[in-house]
Amino acid sequence: MNILEIIAKKRDKKELSKEEIEFFIKGYTNESITDYQAAALVMAIYLNGMTDEELFNLTFSMANSGEVLDLSEFGTNVVDKHSTGGVGDKVSIVLLPIIASLGIPVAKMSGRGLGFTGGTIDKLEAIPGYNTSVSIDSFKEYVHKIGISMIGQTMNLAPADKKIYALRDTISCVDNIPLIASSIMSKKIAAGANKIVLEVTYGKGAFMKSLEDAKLLAEKMESLGKYAGREVKSVFTPMNEPIGFAVGNTLEIIEAINFLKGKELPDDLKNIVLEIGSYMIKLAGKGDNLEENKKKMLENINNGLAFEKFKQMVEMQGGDASYLNDINRFEKAKYMVQVKSDKKGKITEINAEDIGKLACELGAGRIKKDDKIDMSVGIVLNKKVNDFVEQNELLATIYANDEEKCKIAVEKIKNIIKI
Amino acid sequence: MNILEIIAKKRDKKELSKEEIEFFIKGYTNESITDYQAAALVMAIYLNGMTDEELFNLTFSMANSGEVLDLSEFGTNVVDKHSTGGVGDKVSIVLLPIIASLGIPVAKMSGRGLGFTGGTIDKLEAIPGYNTSVSIDSFKEYVHKIGISMIGQTMNLAPADKKIYALRDTISCVDNIPLIASSIMSKKIAAGANKIVLEVTYGKGAFMKSLEDAKLLAEKMESLGKYAGREVKSVFTPMNEPIGFAVGNTLEIIEAINFLKGKELPDDLKNIVLEIGSYMIKLAGKGDNLEENKKKMLENINNGLAFEKFKQMVEMQGGDASYLNDINRFEKAKYMVQVKSDKKGKITEINAEDIGKLACELGAGRIKKDDKIDMSVGIVLNKKVNDFVEQNELLATIYANDEEKCKIAVEKIKNIIKI
Repeated sequence: MNILEIIAKKRDKKELSKEEIEFFIKGYTNESITDYQAAALVMAIYLNGMTDEELFNLTFSMANSGEVLDLSEFGTNVVDKHSTGGVGDKVSIVLLPIIASLGIPVAKMSGRGLGFTGGTIDKLEAIPGYNTSVSIDSFKEYVHKIGISMIGQTMNLAPADKKIYALRDTISCVDNIPLIASSIMSKKIAAGANKIVLEVTYGKGAFMKSLEDAKLLAEKMESLGKYAGREVKSVFTPMNEPIGFAVGNTLEIIEAINFLKGKELPDDLKNIVLEIGSYMIKLAGKGDNLEENKKKMLENINNGLAFEKFKQMVEMQGGDASYLNDINRFEKAKYMVQVKSDKKGKITEINAEDIGKLACELGAGRIKKDDKIDMSVGIVLNKKVNDFVEQNELLATIYANDEEKCKIAVEKIKNIIKI
Repeated sequence: MNILEIIAKKRDKKELSKEEIEFFIKGYTNESITDYQAAALVMAIYLNGMTDEELFNLTFSMANSGEVLDLSEFGTNVVDKHSTGGVGDKVSIVLLPIIASLGIPVAKMSGRGLGFTGGTIDKLEAIPGYNTSVSIDSFKEYVHKIGISMIGQTMNLAPADKKIYALRDTISCVDNIPLIASSIMSKKIAAGANKIVLEVTYGKGAFMKSLEDAKLLAEKMESLGKYAGREVKSVFTPMNEPIGFAVGNTLEIIEAINFLKGKELPDDLKNIVLEIGSYMIKLAGKGDNLEENKKKMLENINNGLAFEKFKQMVEMQGGDASYLNDINRFEKAKYMVQVKSDKKGKITEINAEDIGKLACELGAGRIKKDDKIDMSVGIVLNKKVNDFVEQNELLATIYANDEEKCKIAVEKIKNIIKI
């Protein structure tokens, strides 16, 4: 077997065997197969497609290319969630403590942000002291003790996927549904859960621009999950404007705290959290009635159990819980500028991607992998799409640590919020 | 403009502009575009094809990616020839002195051998003293003085083609007619001639396995030539058995000398030489009647002018012409073993590629780029396909410098010559 034959086969639209796909994944991971050979094969896959079986073998090979997290000690109903991403996405941060408060074990590894979307791990690190780099032993210990832990990717999960994803990014092979499905599912399979709720986002702020594409992606991921013996359920979320009101790490953590305290539950964030959560509870075998499940979740917000679980987790991972009790303790940005409306009217658009990029420019995100994040900066919107606004009414507040960047952001946001 | 957009365009079957193709070729040559990006683009080109205009722009960009030889001082009818290669191919060595002896200037850069096909330059170097690495000024001076010079690729001709060719070899994108056409024509355009006769070989010993494919390749090359303002004519040569009888550098030079002396003209070699030559004479404006042209060529063999021109060239480039006068002066291989037929019958096959590989194993060719060549080794066949052979009649002679290799070759050749 050699890589030239494998490339030629896919080039000629022939089906690759399990052994051939494993040969490629192993060889690319250990660098006996070069980037340019992988690039040629990936382009051939992009253009000529893969059968369901090929795609599963690719996914499974990538999942097994590094460490695989074994969560079997927590039973057979460990539930994970995954989102294809959005702007202002604090869903995991509010949802998972609620789920854990219902007695369902949560052992969650999340990623960092890159480009216009933020990352759950970066946001959690906005809580002073919160340690996201814990050993797998401690991670499991926390879950045993309090039923929840949320950490960064401290294991070498699916390194082949990481390499192929980075390669795809440089050869215009990102927007391909089978390859996206395979990439996500390889990580989910390696991450150990046997039940997975997938939130597939679509719209202007998501990779999938239409609901139709989102459904195709979900279909592929569900069938890959089935092949791998995982129960997978997809929910679909439009992603045109940011989720909730806050975009920026500390600002989003504050919004999440207020949500878990039951103080302020933005409709869109609430709906997403309840929708995904109700399926997680169902997959965990804790209730088949989705509406009942949603009620249980709201109950645990109102009775304080969800917030309590979140606090427990923060303390367990070294975070300073006093910030959770008093959000005024969070360090504030140097400049806070209120942006008011020039005219009266209905808000027609707040493009999520544009808001994400703007937050990134303020320092809330990374453009390159090694960029440092400024926790306190970002944007808090005061309105959602379809809201009415009076002249001179508050549209948004810009939080910045650089005067020049702040000025630019104030100008830009007026064009992003379309009235 | 950026390479991601260019890859995405070709991936989506859109036509690339001249500027986009130039951007790719320049960027790949100066290494601002990586091998894996080029690999993805080449695979997309392989699978989605190129319009004639795109292919011409690719060819012309590659031709202009390095130095371009200016032969305008020799007039507007400078004729070049190119062959897609064969085993035992000494066509250029006998043909070009004949052409030069008819007053048509010959300024020829040739390549070295790699794999089972030999190279004209390696063969010329079998003549002691013959210098193939001369400066372009000397090269042109020789052509002015005696009307002919044959040298190696001392100029940096079409470096982008070299890079892309080497890349294609490692990503299973070699056997693609448009890319082959573009590769050959980029070198021919950079090599300066404005009239080109292309010998397109086909069969078991050639890249093109069928006449049909050979015709498609010729069509593409002719249309690329037309775009570039070059007059191009193709001739087709079956390449199943080796050309002539000798395979191996010194052995082929001796065969070429005997041909030019009019001593021994193997039918197949004679036909190819006359066919290509008659078109070269026509393109050079020295005679429209092909049969007349062939006669002129044979005349100059018989009257000694062709051999005289060859001797002049060898002397001009530092070669020892005494070897040409007395072929017994050439250094002989240590072992010469005659292989005789076990049975009586008709020869049905002498696979050119197998013979080429066998000569290579004896040391006549390179497997890797830096291998040293053993000039004296090789094979001299005694029969051609369709010849009859008696039991115990001579089939071939093996020339070797290594006893073990010689033994293996003797065994192998019996299986290659099918009776």
